[in-house]
Amino acid sequence: MRYDFGSDNTSGMAPAALKALVQANAGYAPSYGADDVTARAADHIRRRLDADAEIRFVFSGTAANAIALSMLAWPHEAVLAHHAAHICTDETGAPGFFGQGVGLIGLPGFSGKIDPAALNAALEEPEVGHRQPPAALSLTQSTEYGTVYTEEELRHLIEPAKLKGCGVHLDGARLANAAAGGFDLTQIARLGVDVLVFGGAKAGANCTEAIVMFDKSLARRIDNRLKQAGQTASKARFLAAPFLGLLETNAWEDGAAHANLMAQRLAAGIATRSSFSLAHPVEANAVFVRIPPEAQERLNAMGWACYRFDDGSVRFVCSWATEEAAVDELSQAIATL
Amino acid sequence: MRYDFGSDNTSGMAPAALKALVQANAGYAPSYGADDVTARAADHIRRRLDADAEIRFVFSGTAANAIALSMLAWPHEAVLAHHAAHICTDETGAPGFFGQGVGLIGLPGFSGKIDPAALNAALEEPEVGHRQPPAALSLTQSTEYGTVYTEEELRHLIEPAKLKGCGVHLDGARLANAAAGGFDLTQIARLGVDVLVFGGAKAGANCTEAIVMFDKSLARRIDNRLKQAGQTASKARFLAAPFLGLLETNAWEDGAAHANLMAQRLAAGIATRSSFSLAHPVEANAVFVRIPPEAQERLNAMGWACYRFDDGSVRFVCSWATEEAAVDELSQAIATL
Amino acid sequence: MRYDFGSDNTSGMAPAALKALVQANAGYAPSYGADDVTARAADHIRRRLDADAEIRFVFSGTAANAIALSMLAWPHEAVLAHHAAHICTDETGAPGFFGQGVGLIGLPGFSGKIDPAALNAALEEPEVGHRQPPAALSLTQSTEYGTVYTEEELRHLIEPAKLKGCGVHLDGARLANAAAGGFDLTQIARLGVDVLVFGGAKAGANCTEAIVMFDKSLARRIDNRLKQAGQTASKARFLAAPFLGLLETNAWEDGAAHANLMAQRLAAGIATRSSFSLAHPVEANAVFVRIPPEAQERLNAMGWACYRFDDGSVRFVCSWATEEAAVDELSQAIATL
Amino acid sequence: MRYDFGSDNTSGMAPAALKALVQANAGYAPSYGADDVTARAADHIRRRLDADAEIRFVFSGTAANAIALSMLAWPHEAVLAHHAAHICTDETGAPGFFGQGVGLIGLPGFSGKIDPAALNAALEEPEVGHRQPPAALSLTQSTEYGTVYTEEELRHLIEPAKLKGCGVHLDGARLANAAAGGFDLTQIARLGVDVLVFGGAKAGANCTEAIVMFDKSLARRIDNRLKQAGQTASKARFLAAPFLGLLETNAWEDGAAHANLMAQRLAAGIATRSSFSLAHPVEANAVFVRIPPEAQERLNAMGWACYRFDDGSVRFVCSWATEEAAVDELSQAIATL
Repeated sequence: MRYDFGSDNTSGMAPAALKALVQANAGYAPSYGADDVTARAADHIRRRLDADAEIRFVFSGTAANAIALSMLAWPHEAVLAHHAAHICTDETGAPGFFGQGVGLIGLPGFSGKIDPAALNAALEEPEVGHRQPPAALSLTQSTEYGTVYTEEELRHLIEPAKLKGCGVHLDGARLANAAAGGFDLTQIARLGVDVLVFGGAKAGANCTEAIVMFDKSLARRIDNRLKQAGQTASKARFLAAPFLGLLETNAWEDGAAHANLMAQRLAAGIATRSSFSLAHPVEANAVFVRIPPEAQERLNAMGWACYRFDDGSVRFVCSWATEEAAVDELSQAIATL
Repeated sequence: MRYDFGSDNTSGMAPAALKALVQANAGYAPSYGADDVTARAADHIRRRLDADAEIRFVFSGTAANAIALSMLAWPHEAVLAHHAAHICTDETGAPGFFGQGVGLIGLPGFSGKIDPAALNAALEEPEVGHRQPPAALSLTQSTEYGTVYTEEELRHLIEPAKLKGCGVHLDGARLANAAAGGFDLTQIARLGVDVLVFGGAKAGANCTEAIVMFDKSLARRIDNRLKQAGQTASKARFLAAPFLGLLETNAWEDGAAHANLMAQRLAAGIATRSSFSLAHPVEANAVFVRIPPEAQERLNAMGWACYRFDDGSVRFVCSWATEEAAVDELSQAIATL
Repeated sequence: MRYDFGSDNTSGMAPAALKALVQANAGYAPSYGADDVTARAADHIRRRLDADAEIRFVFSGTAANAIALSMLAWPHEAVLAHHAAHICTDETGAPGFFGQGVGLIGLPGFSGKIDPAALNAALEEPEVGHRQPPAALSLTQSTEYGTVYTEEELRHLIEPAKLKGCGVHLDGARLANAAAGGFDLTQIARLGVDVLVFGGAKAGANCTEAIVMFDKSLARRIDNRLKQAGQTASKARFLAAPFLGLLETNAWEDGAAHANLMAQRLAAGIATRSSFSLAHPVEANAVFVRIPPEAQERLNAMGWACYRFDDGSVRFVCSWATEEAAVDELSQAIATL
Repeated sequence: MRYDFGSDNTSGMAPAALKALVQANAGYAPSYGADDVTARAADHIRRRLDADAEIRFVFSGTAANAIALSMLAWPHEAVLAHHAAHICTDETGAPGFFGQGVGLIGLPGFSGKIDPAALNAALEEPEVGHRQPPAALSLTQSTEYGTVYTEEELRHLIEPAKLKGCGVHLDGARLANAAAGGFDLTQIARLGVDVLVFGGAKAGANCTEAIVMFDKSLARRIDNRLKQAGQTASKARFLAAPFLGLLETNAWEDGAAHANLMAQRLAAGIATRSSFSLAHPVEANAVFVRIPPEAQERLNAMGWACYRFDDGSVRFVCSWATEEAAVDELSQAIATL
């Protein structure tokens, strides 16, 4: 089975990440994040975001998101998110586990972007004691369906949420792809995001994501919080080093730009060669195609791993590692279905 | 500051681990643990333990322990452990977080080993509704104070606990050092341990521990459990590969044997050269020395990182990476305090 | 404002309940449920159900339901329930709080009854690690929309759930009304329900519900579980006594029969006098009427408390205390809207 | 078995409480605390405390305490309390359950009063990521061993805790007895207590305690919080009415004064007639006596329920209902042991 397009986490570490990891391996280093590699990687992230922030590296996006949300909402409150957001559909209820029952309110919207009218309606719901009122808004950039919010779109979601007292979380598992798609990272803090998950794994790191707390009050006793949640690395340099390698060399951006380009090429190939239509605009590194179940089965049988999503389309994802030839092979294969 | 002896997690990955990690990085691999490296690493662990078991790799010992305990005890029950066990003193209450309030009952005993009489007394306590009765026994091998339980000692703790219906967890963060100290790994399953945390990080891996479920009923829906708890690696090969490298080459054992030898050398050096006494028998890779606070401050000022423990002694830890020369330098330095 | 029809918890205790409470108040009694009144009330419930079971009295239906579900599903699992079930819409996420993030999967179905096809579809979903698979089925009898499941209907829901290994919970907040509507209580155990919440408050008790554990293994350390959850009454007789009074005198059934009769009268009155249609069959003590928002506002302004539900209809509830004259007044008022 | 002295929760409701409950039963009332009885009872409590505060009535002291603490400390933080405090020894780990693992740090001190030096030492502990630092101080008035803190003593505990940023919780399960023992209730708010549990059950109510939030920011979305925690009464008047009856008539104070007087009489009787010594000063309604196990068994065999505490003494508790004759009978019985 070929996993090239199954997800962007089927790729290994990008060369720059691996190199930095190998380098960081030498010698002794203080544990639990007091090392130099960790400090430098955090600096690079702050520079990218042009903002001050407390930053910690954790092991998984699921934990990063859930812990971030637990800072913003009590168990008796809820988080507003697109109904197709990773936190709603792919994290086995982690927000509820880390947040002791915190609720999730799924909102509609085309192609993974929350519909502002639906958000406003949810925010306007009268509060009653027997339901969990919203305390946080969770956004995903790029979205679960491979689209990229414009700054303007984000503003129209964040502003009303903040007016109602909600904190704002941004799941940036594919933030590099959004940046490569034109999104200006320096706007994240300015737009009012309180906690950002700055993605590493899908950008070519190992299993690492950074929790970026622009609102530093959220970082109070963060080391205790993460340790208790099993998200403190004793050998912390191994979380930060791949990030450092990616950011020092711009491989974080370059790899994402490459992935996006490959997604464009794949989309064009499918459009040209096959009769299947795209389910969503291709603005980042994922291509969603309306392929019927039997056709998908044939594609799987031909050796291509790919998965059907809740909207009924089949997803193909490109990464820093995707090769042109593979893209062409795949679009060829799809054409024969 | 020199971190050589501050902990065994201040070392990097051992060469065999790093090499395997680099090798595993090539190409695409299915995510979430369906890859070949993960399967092979698990096989090696089963072979070491001479037992069938469900095995999963997770990111941290804190999470591994807490999740294991959450399988054995309900929130309204408690876990029996040595009062100096890592779960009691160094994990920021993680068992209570993952286990929604599960209790910890600290037991006394010399040098990190639970006193069987104290265990029996706790097991004999009449159950009352307003306290959390014990449902699990948590053991640590090698112990927090660098000693190694004999098989006989373990049997005298496990048997009465099992008779009372308790499940048994073994924290093996330093299991390699216990094995190098003469402990027979194939006895773990036979003694009745239900869940073992098979240590990687301190044995020369990156941040990885394996949860070994001998009682396979505990593994029901384990992938859901781990995903929800933020302990599922998307790029799972990066958790398993270092383990694979260590186990394929026996570096797991060899590194621990070296660490133990260095601890012996350090203990001997301190005994010979200084007037400080050892606080505990040196049976694994840690040396605890009765050094007064001011003397420790001088040692720290000389550049040696080391920490005081709850028993009042100062700990020095050796690892696969410890060099003889460094050991001698340190014992020399201690002699001058 | 008149609260007669706002809910069935706006009534006080029925005379038999109050009388028993006053009687039970005399003298000293052992605390925490070791008293005689508690034992006798439990016996009456077992007799009603013609089944052996462990029984405990708790303070609220929300707690009773959530605790029952926490016995049947782990945090990484989910509970199947009608999307309009009280646990889904009216308990502020209590199942997730008591169950540390346990999921709820809302199922469709007319008039509060789960559609068997939808249940089967949910049960047939392939299990994946990143979602919470169903571990329990939660039913409500009588339903949230005032209908009563037949034994046959329940069998067609319980059987497939049990075949898939799910435990079964029955929320019987209005079980008395279901019984008065023809439902045979002795079938609950036979149908395979594992935990029943036997309703007191809405049947004329104070704030009391009984957790009935037919599967006695679920009752292991139940007293510790309830104490930890804040659901152990020190003066336990005050929870059991109203139940005892209701059950000894058959006021539990008689009050519910009266309430159902009043609901029929109200439904008939509305049908006869007004042009509003009923939203659901009236099989228990609630009447749901399709009244537009402005008309409801006029009704509220006339002094009648009533609430709009998620299906868009307005609910009126009768209780043991409802008077014929009030019913007629209300249907008259509705006719004028 | 005679339960008169087993606890103060073996008594029924005091006449004033029962009378108010019966009165409140008449007619319909809005549910969930919107009723008049609830409002009036809260007013009486505010007046007693001479302070503004948000007040809610809940079902049990265990829940009241645990919910209060969950407002003051995150799961990764801890609560400082006397090691013999009810939250530490008698609530089955409820703070950890409601607070998802929040820690408890037990402090020493004579007769149930926290030793200020021990508190200061705990507050001065350097914070480290791998332990739960204190975020709240929990006090009990009157204490678990029947003593009453002076205002001065409380000040010396509350001030340093507040200086370190800790919130302050006061468990007032026996606050009436403290007041009867000379403690000025109007000082609670002035001393800086953030959340008080104002005791009902042991003062002659049914199972009811009031959560009093002087710091109103803690009360944000309190109704959602309580509903989710299973502590919202649908028929709320039944929680508030007994309180109202006790407070309107001063039976709350009078009953406690009587109980304290009976405790004095019992203490005097034991001192005069027997050779057993008192373990603690008798300042409220409990008498702790140094009776050896065999003697206690004889006393139990004579029909007197009583319990041994962690300090090794046997406790006898008086209540509003205790009769002089019973006190004399008991001290006579003790004299014969």
